[in-house]
Amino acid sequence: MPVPFNDDVAAYETTKGNLVVLKTDMLVAKTDVPPDMTLWQAARKAVVMNISDFAAKGVQPISALVSLGLPRNLDETDIEQIGEGLNAGARQYGAYIIGGDTGEASDLVIAIALFGMAKKGTLMLRKGAKPGDIVAVTGVFGKTSAGLRILVHKLEAAGEIKEALTNSILMPNARLKEGLALCRTRAVSAAIDSSDGLAWSLHEIARASGVGISLEKLPIALEAEQFASANRLDPAELALYGGEEYELVLTVKSNMWREVQTAVKRTGGSLFQIGKVTSDSSIIYETSGKRTEIPPKGYEHFKE
Amino acid sequence: MPVPFNDDVAAYETTKGNLVVLKTDMLVAKTDVPPDMTLWQAARKAVVMNISDFAAKGVQPISALVSLGLPRNLDETDIEQIGEGLNAGARQYGAYIIGGDTGEASDLVIAIALFGMAKKGTLMLRKGAKPGDIVAVTGVFGKTSAGLRILVHKLEAAGEIKEALTNSILMPNARLKEGLALCRTRAVSAAIDSSDGLAWSLHEIARASGVGISLEKLPIALEAEQFASANRLDPAELALYGGEEYELVLTVKSNMWREVQTAVKRTGGSLFQIGKVTSDSSIIYETSGKRTEIPPKGYEHFKE
Repeated sequence: MPVPFNDDVAAYETTKGNLVVLKTDMLVAKTDVPPDMTLWQAARKAVVMNISDFAAKGVQPISALVSLGLPRNLDETDIEQIGEGLNAGARQYGAYIIGGDTGEASDLVIAIALFGMAKKGTLMLRKGAKPGDIVAVTGVFGKTSAGLRILVHKLEAAGEIKEALTNSILMPNARLKEGLALCRTRAVSAAIDSSDGLAWSLHEIARASGVGISLEKLPIALEAEQFASANRLDPAELALYGGEEYELVLTVKSNMWREVQTAVKRTGGSLFQIGKVTSDSSIIYETSGKRTEIPPKGYEHFKE
Repeated sequence: MPVPFNDDVAAYETTKGNLVVLKTDMLVAKTDVPPDMTLWQAARKAVVMNISDFAAKGVQPISALVSLGLPRNLDETDIEQIGEGLNAGARQYGAYIIGGDTGEASDLVIAIALFGMAKKGTLMLRKGAKPGDIVAVTGVFGKTSAGLRILVHKLEAAGEIKEALTNSILMPNARLKEGLALCRTRAVSAAIDSSDGLAWSLHEIARASGVGISLEKLPIALEAEQFASANRLDPAELALYGGEEYELVLTVKSNMWREVQTAVKRTGGSLFQIGKVTSDSSIIYETSGKRTEIPPKGYEHFKE
């Protein structure tokens, strides 16, 4: 298979060198829709979370199909909102909703099937990181952890940062432009998105590539730092074990770093170095002379 | 779009004349898994119901992606059963499971995204039936209605027919060989499967094609006749308003009827004429001189 079974997307070679790229993942209200998220936002998120996986592989999504499981208490306006949210999510990234099916379910379920095309051998995969490669991310972390604590656990935050934190959950964005630009550089040795948390993503790259990672710094969002300090939380915990965060986590051949960073900047995005790939098999965080091993702990969906 | 939005599959033209064909539909335990259906059977059914839509369009499924929503009470053996059922459903029809994603849900949800390829202009669509065309089906009806009444409503049936009736629900089959053969004849003017009931399918073809249908006979399964008689039910009701039944319902140019029937027989299948397309807009059932209008009533998923 052109893409290993456990990667973020699946691919099929239709004609020599040409791949159809497919992805399906579902949003389930119970675990993926926090309080205060509207149906429009939930539907948009269902699309965005699938597009994020395409972004991590460097593939432009072309079209999406939707399979909806609708609880009985939804009315026509609700379903319209869902339709508009789906469309907004797709159009934001240049894709179209081209079909779908609707049924009844106890809980709102939105399954998206995403389709795109790529040339064989060009996709960024989870495997491929080599010792010496630079580990990088497309943004800062921790906002979604904080946002969920506000929305679900009702922690407080000052007005000026509250919106940024909750918005990171309610209106997530996929790093598609960045992913496409990264893929074109041919200098990315491994990539994944951070939807299950930064720590989990690092472990996935390490596991799939048979390498370790030494983290030098954690790019934490300023709002997350402030939230952590006001609530006596560890900002590094927020950044490492968050989730529902759609940054890309990747490794880059070190001699190409400048070029790759420039390519991402040209899209209007950012690329931060956070560490290096090692020949070890563990994820070590070195800060102020202290070495901490980062456990392979993932983000656990919040519960109602 | 090469296939109208409301048809059974969606398609995208990748290169001139070449279509990628996609379908997604989900099975939800609450409405799609009757009592006594094993997890293996439920998973297999999730694949078969999607393949049935490919069959109705005349497209060979190539690969499938699965998105699973799993309730917490399932253990590893359960999930293995689901995996094996998915695989059995795909392999029976020559397709492969090439990827997927897993999450938590209150109720078991299995969303399948199916992928295939076709040449533009060759797919059988819901629209296209013309007055004078022959209306045909690939099998007899009523077994699933009876089967659900046994499984869900605990009606009784004699031992020798009970298994055939419940099996029609627990181990459904898609008419893929028939659909592919029908498509190759180029003589099918419209087609759909009967998963929402025969009456519903006839209405869909009529609506999409802007025609009416005059039914001359209803092909009712012998076991369904016997079950109806023992339980004082109307066998025609069982046949018309059943569901979870995966026969194909289609219209054929009348001068090509023999040829089309032969093509289906060569696959080991059957093709029964049940009526004719009219220029009217209603579905009329004429039997023993009585004309009854068939209402556009669909199969309603059974409730727990």
